[in-house]
Amino acid sequence: MQAEIITIGDEILIGQIVDSNSAFIAKQLNKIGVSVYQITSVQDDKAHILKSLKEAEDNADVIILTGGLGPTKDDITKNTLAEYFNDTLVPDTSVLENIQELWKKYIKQELSQVNIDQALVPSKAQVLMNRFGSAPGMWFEKDSKVFISLPGVPFEMKALIENEVIPKLQKQYKLPFILHKTLLTYGHGESKISERIEVWEDNLPKFMKFAYLPSLGRVRLRLSAKANDKEMVVAEMEKQIALLLPQIQDIFVGFEEDHSIEAIIGKRLTELGKTLATAESCTGGKIAEQITAISGASTYFKGSIVSYSMQSKIEVLKIDASIIDKYSVVSTQVAEAMAKQAQKLFKADYAIATTGNAGPTKGDDNAEVGTVCIALATPKGVFSEEYHLGNHRTKVINKAVNKAFELLQKEILKY
Amino acid sequence: MQAEIITIGDEILIGQIVDSNSAFIAKQLNKIGVSVYQITSVQDDKAHILKSLKEAEDNADVIILTGGLGPTKDDITKNTLAEYFNDTLVPDTSVLENIQELWKKYIKQELSQVNIDQALVPSKAQVLMNRFGSAPGMWFEKDSKVFISLPGVPFEMKALIENEVIPKLQKQYKLPFILHKTLLTYGHGESKISERIEVWEDNLPKFMKFAYLPSLGRVRLRLSAKANDKEMVVAEMEKQIALLLPQIQDIFVGFEEDHSIEAIIGKRLTELGKTLATAESCTGGKIAEQITAISGASTYFKGSIVSYSMQSKIEVLKIDASIIDKYSVVSTQVAEAMAKQAQKLFKADYAIATTGNAGPTKGDDNAEVGTVCIALATPKGVFSEEYHLGNHRTKVINKAVNKAFELLQKEILKY
Repeated sequence: MQAEIITIGDEILIGQIVDSNSAFIAKQLNKIGVSVYQITSVQDDKAHILKSLKEAEDNADVIILTGGLGPTKDDITKNTLAEYFNDTLVPDTSVLENIQELWKKYIKQELSQVNIDQALVPSKAQVLMNRFGSAPGMWFEKDSKVFISLPGVPFEMKALIENEVIPKLQKQYKLPFILHKTLLTYGHGESKISERIEVWEDNLPKFMKFAYLPSLGRVRLRLSAKANDKEMVVAEMEKQIALLLPQIQDIFVGFEEDHSIEAIIGKRLTELGKTLATAESCTGGKIAEQITAISGASTYFKGSIVSYSMQSKIEVLKIDASIIDKYSVVSTQVAEAMAKQAQKLFKADYAIATTGNAGPTKGDDNAEVGTVCIALATPKGVFSEEYHLGNHRTKVINKAVNKAFELLQKEILKY
Repeated sequence: MQAEIITIGDEILIGQIVDSNSAFIAKQLNKIGVSVYQITSVQDDKAHILKSLKEAEDNADVIILTGGLGPTKDDITKNTLAEYFNDTLVPDTSVLENIQELWKKYIKQELSQVNIDQALVPSKAQVLMNRFGSAPGMWFEKDSKVFISLPGVPFEMKALIENEVIPKLQKQYKLPFILHKTLLTYGHGESKISERIEVWEDNLPKFMKFAYLPSLGRVRLRLSAKANDKEMVVAEMEKQIALLLPQIQDIFVGFEEDHSIEAIIGKRLTELGKTLATAESCTGGKIAEQITAISGASTYFKGSIVSYSMQSKIEVLKIDASIIDKYSVVSTQVAEAMAKQAQKLFKADYAIATTGNAGPTKGDDNAEVGTVCIALATPKGVFSEEYHLGNHRTKVINKAVNKAFELLQKEILKY
């Protein structure tokens, strides 16, 4: 079973939005054993959509489209699908009722004609009801192929994928088993790792694939397997991981899969019954933001002080001004003082602190762009590291966030 | 001039990463008058890459590839390109020197054979020197078409696009002029807006396109024009905007283009010489993080207290506990107290505060999931709003951040 994803919208082709829908859909399809052959982003243009549909039909068994289902003139996906399937649009009562209900509950205005028209659906389509919006999902079958059209609004699309598309595909097809394992490593580059594990990699069975995913100071190693026999896949995956792990023991952090490092940390802190706070300067709140993006974070996260100005380091975070004078604001000493203060003020077991210069220009401190000091206060004391993370603002901030999470994870894995 | 972008990597097709490279490239190409016809993401698979190259050659004048240039076995783009152009790989001295220099400066280890091999380049390629990494960019010409292969690591790719690809394309081709204007609106849905401006939209000249981009409580309206005559395009754009604006005056916030609302706010605060602080509960630091992602934010941003626990609201932010008892933690009164405290502690002119329940479950407060109270303290006083932002955690957080920026922007635009 192969799928192709087609995302439709001029906003993608002019770079105004990043298409995150296709990554979500690809992940969900992979989980149920459907490989994605290709992702294609095309304009809101009839001829182009028709051409992509034809090509996708040649390549794939399941074709999923997102976008172009809105009520406005630039949205032409529904009419184009009707043309592709030699079909006409007919009113669908259940869709109209859903729209009326949404309007009554949330919009509280009279339905306009363009919204009533959203209840027009090609007669050959099965409706996938969109509980969060007015554009219905649609499921077409042609010969042995399935075409699924979904709205481009991410949360509407996600709900339809999870509640309608995935269960329906699983019901309709006997699917192979796909398994991915991703190992988080840090400390070595991909070439260094590849040399070390070359023999292992060369001896992988044909149904397994291995990839290196370097990103800002870490390399993720992804091992994928796909076959009909689930038990065999699981056993072989275990075997290969067992062979690999001893060779990368010094750089291995944990398994990733669906879990980000923030989620792994959150789970561990919850198990330990410990709490966390942060004091952030150059990372500007991004560590706190990533922690609190995980639901349930209030169990272990107490809070953060983002001390972006000198005054706030002294008056809000209450760092001793003499430490700043003596060592300068970007220093391991100040980072440690920040971490200890965050730990104290928030009554937390652990506290992370960052201070540095993300660039693009030197700040008051005159520290080189890319210099970041990160400290971790633990129940047993405080320690810190100084890093040099390059000269690109976004990169420096993101690398610093990653480094901070690594320091913390290494520490809490000890217990 | 049409371009096609091909992003290569299994990690995209299994949904492990979101392809943000193509949006960046598309934006840069559009700026210089090159339209992107299609974006195609394909696997690290020789046959598939060859097929995509052929198709892209049929559709586009410029084909830009990213990914698959690393030193490891899963990276096959360079060999595949050599095959496509009936070419062989030869060592390139300047690339090898660049790699040696990077290793000496940053890696501080001996060069391994796989990295030395990265200096092998197809003989027909012009090298685009990658100052940030070991994989060189490559520029091929075939008949009147250009093929450009770039590394997939975002900051390496970005530097090559900005410093090498764009200048070289501009030098080599006479390019048409493309202009986009994006108007930020809030308060109405896309169908409501489209009804109101239907006549205007129907009368747009053929070389202009109009699109609605709804997102979490706002609709962005994008008007695009493309023609050889730059002056005509600029004049017509001005004329059409002048016709449109009076029809949407009550919902128009500002122009977007390359500027996010955070950047617009930062610019305005800098002009006014005013400063900002935040006190964040349910948004968990995301407002601070988005503000500090803008370089130069230290001019106007003082800091933030992320008070994710009740204790931290009382002890760190120093909210009067009786206000929380009386009105509950998710209330406009508590939001206003938080904003006033942030304003005071950080000695800021403006302070934004958020308190709410992002879900997925009800918290201590028992507030409905999606209830968010946002307050803004200004030099003249404090005010607040209560919102109901749905039942999806990420959506609630992001909508709350957007609402907070809207409140602030409306306020500072008054002066």
